Amino acid sequence: MSDGVPTIKDVADRVGVHAGTASRALNPATRGKVSARTVSRVLEAARVLGYSPNSAARSLRTRTSSVAGVIIPDLRNPVFPPIVRGVEDGLREAGYLALLGNTDGDPERARELLAAMRGQRTDGFILATSRRDDTFSAGMPTVLVNRRADSGSVPSVTADNAAGVQAIVRLLTDLGHTHIGHVAGPQTLSTGWERYRAFVAAADAPAKRIAFADAFSEDAGHAATLRLLDAGPDLTAIVAGNDLIALGCYAALASRGLRVPEDVSVTGFNDIPFVDRQRPALTTVRIPHYDIGLEAARLLMARIGDPAAPAKRIVLPVELVSRASTARRREDRP
Amino acid sequence: MSDGVPTIKDVADRVGVHAGTASRALNPATRGKVSARTVSRVLEAARVLGYSPNSAARSLRTRTSSVAGVIIPDLRNPVFPPIVRGVEDGLREAGYLALLGNTDGDPERARELLAAMRGQRTDGFILATSRRDDTFSAGMPTVLVNRRADSGSVPSVTADNAAGVQAIVRLLTDLGHTHIGHVAGPQTLSTGWERYRAFVAAADAPAKRIAFADAFSEDAGHAATLRLLDAGPDLTAIVAGNDLIALGCYAALASRGLRVPEDVSVTGFNDIPFVDRQRPALTTVRIPHYDIGLEAARLLMARIGDPAAPAKRIVLPVELVSRASTARRREDRP
Repeated sequence: MSDGVPTIKDVADRVGVHAGTASRALNPATRGKVSARTVSRVLEAARVLGYSPNSAARSLRTRTSSVAGVIIPDLRNPVFPPIVRGVEDGLREAGYLALLGNTDGDPERARELLAAMRGQRTDGFILATSRRDDTFSAGMPTVLVNRRADSGSVPSVTADNAAGVQAIVRLLTDLGHTHIGHVAGPQTLSTGWERYRAFVAAADAPAKRIAFADAFSEDAGHAATLRLLDAGPDLTAIVAGNDLIALGCYAALASRGLRVPEDVSVTGFNDIPFVDRQRPALTTVRIPHYDIGLEAARLLMARIGDPAAPAKRIVLPVELVSRASTARRREDRP
Repeated sequence: MSDGVPTIKDVADRVGVHAGTASRALNPATRGKVSARTVSRVLEAARVLGYSPNSAARSLRTRTSSVAGVIIPDLRNPVFPPIVRGVEDGLREAGYLALLGNTDGDPERARELLAAMRGQRTDGFILATSRRDDTFSAGMPTVLVNRRADSGSVPSVTADNAAGVQAIVRLLTDLGHTHIGHVAGPQTLSTGWERYRAFVAAADAPAKRIAFADAFSEDAGHAATLRLLDAGPDLTAIVAGNDLIALGCYAALASRGLRVPEDVSVTGFNDIPFVDRQRPALTTVRIPHYDIGLEAARLLMARIGDPAAPAKRIVLPVELVSRASTARRREDRP
């Protein structure tokens, strides 16, 4: 309890719960997620220690706050800003500040940032940069956000990629599509890998109906879509690995004189800003960007409170958003 | 020279120039902006001190880096991610890390963040949150980014708002428009104020052809556009305070059965991602988001190197981007 100002962690420690639990118990908006008995014990501990709903702000004012490192590939990829905003709000609940760094997907840059941040009183890390083959021995509490590693030894908060792709494939099947292609994202990343696996399981498509984009970008999506069309010209629908890849599909299809959705239906993943205004508006899977960040921050707080606890894997539900880029297969139209 | 690893500031101090100048002299890509004599002295100082082009990265690895605070309204406003990315890259050149905080435009929250960040070895601040009436006595090097304060006592890096609005009004006038309205942004912010003043000067419009949005948002733009149309139904063009307000104009015009650009031309400001894909694609003014952030970071480094130097005001050029939301006034069409 540095400088005599109680933190959320002090309250949590006194009750013997994680900081995230104590935070939820103290916040009237989230209190319902915690058992009544725990809420009562947390409120009592907060009273005894002199922690109030404003103590995070007080902690900031009295300079007792701590720091967590947040490392992402590139803030200009529209999937990350709302996640980072959620992380900052979650850290703030516990009186923490966020050190932010971009890696452009360069593992060496990620290592440099980790080392530099460790020198700045950083108590833990939230990483959006992890690759499937990452192994972590940071010696410091770490939570993976949006992407996770295969090993499972590090806690993570991700969207339900499999459920999202299943919903997309079901939608397309219901619209009469039988020849469905997939422009998959990078397979070194859990997002690309999980969506690809879910597609193969749900659509039972032969290999020639899949093309791999080497990045989650419009350009990579464009190039991969051209390869997909060359290999399988009978496709009537394309499931893209994410929204940016889907926009690359739009461009590639247009260059071949194919219309969306009249000739080929296209779907995305993430529901980044403004894809609802694309021409045509993109059918996609909405992931809870902000909540993913918020939960990651809370999980990190719990982890800092109890580094030896089992590595939790939190998967948040997604939502199918059906818009104008998907339509009934032409042959099936009345 | 903590831990024996020379920083850019050590090099700059030895030569007697600002850290930003030393950084530009050391970077082959920016060297041309510095006098040959200074480049030669900086390179010599770097050699003597053992500072190499990779020393920022080395500094990170050896944990001697420092921290700057970056405070913005909301990362989810698409104007800020590329600015913040530029800031981070600029700080990195000098071995600095970025502490990031969002205020949602709440001055009390901004004060809390400043106080909290001051406690974290923060050497200076980059603020995107300033209001025109802000007075600063942070007692610490500070640079304003994107927005500035009227007082002029704090260095700033902004886009050339006046030139942007002049170019827009000239475009509309050339297209035959004589009844041009303005949906202005908040007048408490320099961005809203400078664009409004430039509009009044360039278009010489009577007061009834201006409506004020109470935020730089689609909703506020929508509401203000309805008021503008009620007051001046003879308008054939609307200059919006920024792109989000322009998208609100689109919605308001559609609700009145007016088409863009057939009935009313609409322009934005900023060129945020995807406004080129709106229906119709938005004519706007492109500000150099990334460079604004990069220059702000370099200016802060210079300021840390010499806190007593005069407060520089850097205004970066903008570019008119003419797209499908502007057209010749209907009466003038052949």
